[in-house]
Amino acid sequence: MDDREAAEKTGKTADLYFSTVKNEEKPYALWKEFDRELAKDLSLFITGRMYSREKIPHTTRQLITVASLTVLSRPEELKLHIHAALNVGCTKEDIAEVIFQTSVYGGVPAANTALKVLKEVLAER
Amino acid sequence: MDDREAAEKTGKTADLYFSTVKNEEKPYALWKEFDRELAKDLSLFITGRMYSREKIPHTTRQLITVASLTVLSRPEELKLHIHAALNVGCTKEDIAEVIFQTSVYGGVPAANTALKVLKEVLAER
Amino acid sequence: MDDREAAEKTGKTADLYFSTVKNEEKPYALWKEFDRELAKDLSLFITGRMYSREKIPHTTRQLITVASLTVLSRPEELKLHIHAALNVGCTKEDIAEVIFQTSVYGGVPAANTALKVLKEVLAER
Amino acid sequence: MDDREAAEKTGKTADLYFSTVKNEEKPYALWKEFDRELAKDLSLFITGRMYSREKIPHTTRQLITVASLTVLSRPEELKLHIHAALNVGCTKEDIAEVIFQTSVYGGVPAANTALKVLKEVLAER
Amino acid sequence: MDDREAAEKTGKTADLYFSTVKNEEKPYALWKEFDRELAKDLSLFITGRMYSREKIPHTTRQLITVASLTVLSRPEELKLHIHAALNVGCTKEDIAEVIFQTSVYGGVPAANTALKVLKEVLAER
Amino acid sequence: MDDREAAEKTGKTADLYFSTVKNEEKPYALWKEFDRELAKDLSLFITGRMYSREKIPHTTRQLITVASLTVLSRPEELKLHIHAALNVGCTKEDIAEVIFQTSVYGGVPAANTALKVLKEVLAER
Repeated sequence: MDDREAAEKTGKTADLYFSTVKNEEKPYALWKEFDRELAKDLSLFITGRMYSREKIPHTTRQLITVASLTVLSRPEELKLHIHAALNVGCTKEDIAEVIFQTSVYGGVPAANTALKVLKEVLAER
Repeated sequence: MDDREAAEKTGKTADLYFSTVKNEEKPYALWKEFDRELAKDLSLFITGRMYSREKIPHTTRQLITVASLTVLSRPEELKLHIHAALNVGCTKEDIAEVIFQTSVYGGVPAANTALKVLKEVLAER
Repeated sequence: MDDREAAEKTGKTADLYFSTVKNEEKPYALWKEFDRELAKDLSLFITGRMYSREKIPHTTRQLITVASLTVLSRPEELKLHIHAALNVGCTKEDIAEVIFQTSVYGGVPAANTALKVLKEVLAER
Repeated sequence: MDDREAAEKTGKTADLYFSTVKNEEKPYALWKEFDRELAKDLSLFITGRMYSREKIPHTTRQLITVASLTVLSRPEELKLHIHAALNVGCTKEDIAEVIFQTSVYGGVPAANTALKVLKEVLAER
Repeated sequence: MDDREAAEKTGKTADLYFSTVKNEEKPYALWKEFDRELAKDLSLFITGRMYSREKIPHTTRQLITVASLTVLSRPEELKLHIHAALNVGCTKEDIAEVIFQTSVYGGVPAANTALKVLKEVLAER
Repeated sequence: MDDREAAEKTGKTADLYFSTVKNEEKPYALWKEFDRELAKDLSLFITGRMYSREKIPHTTRQLITVASLTVLSRPEELKLHIHAALNVGCTKEDIAEVIFQTSVYGGVPAANTALKVLKEVLAER
């Protein structure tokens, strides 16, 4: 895959995931304020070359992201990916189930924080 | 669900997940050495009441476990759940894809450790 | 212990620990919004079967919780358990000492966050 | 080094690093509210005996602090040390570069949180 | 407290805690290989000024250390402090109870690793 | 920067950093076993587009990596980057100083693990 193809896939996947997220809340907007070239490289790599791979369904990919961000306790990023999970077709029950399950691995307090974020996102939409 | 029903589900789900894991490597064996009652409670809760819920497919559940244990860097537990993931029908490509993806959230070194565990489990089976 | 007995112990231990915490701030209230059955299972397991064991005094148990939540940096959950620690008879000096001590294991910044939470809880009571 | 010498170095290094931070936001102020003697011991140890060592330049030392606090996701403490980094002569480009680099080790979400803190500090100064 | 008094307390507390640990396994031995002065400062601070404070009993202090090192997953350091806990009078049941309890905060896999360390230390003694 | 230029920089920077590390111990070798294309993408991104940027000196960059991997407790990856730090001209005193300093942020046990890795690498070279 060359950079032009990666750029196309980046755009398409970003639209699919983050259409309900405001531009100024996207990491890309933040990166660009500090380094335009690296912002582009990071975006092409993560969204274009990683998320757009079609090895596993987007629903599975987003539930995996939800699980990872829950156990790491990264609530701001989790908010974006709960949007993405809902946008690709996960139900709120799927997302809650994943968060509850991770309490076994990452502890109950991290899961509680994630459930609060889920509640907040659902209230907003 | 009463305790008898939970016990049945615990047995059935444990067989489904961990048939390829030696008894002495299972957490239950370790817990029992310290506290038989709590060992039973933990096992009924985690395996019987959590894993046996049929809200999401077992393949998704195990990929979520793989993601969580990768970013938390818990290689011993990860080994058991890579077995479980393969036993419920995930392919090694699915597992590798999930591990690679988590490098974005939990960093590349944690993913590298997980890939080594995957390689080790595949070599053993 | 059967579920009825666990339910009784859950109620009694929850009263002992969290009488000064508003209902809507308790994890149980949050869990119930997503899954009533699992909320009950989690509550019976954690409060009824774990916290109500009388193997170590409640004061020790709560100081252990304070230490764990400090090094993991989980300030929201810590708030609840600083209440619980004070409610079972720990002094504010005990709690501060535990937080200071954990700075050796989990670093000074995590301890600073916990001291701020302690200060906040003391101001509220 | 005796305690008097450590105290002098503590004062001098604290001035160098934290002149732009309000007193009530410094950890020392927080520690003193709970234990005056331990507050002094901690301060003499960390600032007087550790930071004032001249084994590596202050700019390198502060970039190392920025990296550590980024991957650990400790935004409140990071704010103080972004001030310190700027006060000893690091540029905002140096700090951004360090934060971007740590995304490889501690994940992108932790780096995003740190970039937001950097943006906030730059806006304040 | 001056440095001479701290040195005396360091020696006394180190004897109380680590009499069953080989010298070459103690952090102090490791620190000295890299920096003799800092090794002494660290030792005086942690053992002399922190552990020797008599604000909470040594048994509570060691259980707090066990909890912290369990949720942080630091098995090598945990080994030393399980020795210390047993040396100051904690029973193996106390230690196991603390580890089981932390599974709620730091997850079950971290607790499993700690139980293995406990088993190992008990086998050695 | 196009992919060909990134590939050149990747090779050059990898030679500079990892000439003393065996090929089979490099992450790239591990990645390739699971996915050749993603292995190449990861390598071009991390080594070619991130490490080869000349915004901060290679010595600073490697000390930052040492600090990050120490507080995250990733000893296998740390080993590779202690090699890299020595290969670009950091002294063992610099590396030890950085590890000692991080004990304030990530705790003393994580620093102890890192010092053991440093000792091991120095013994091998």
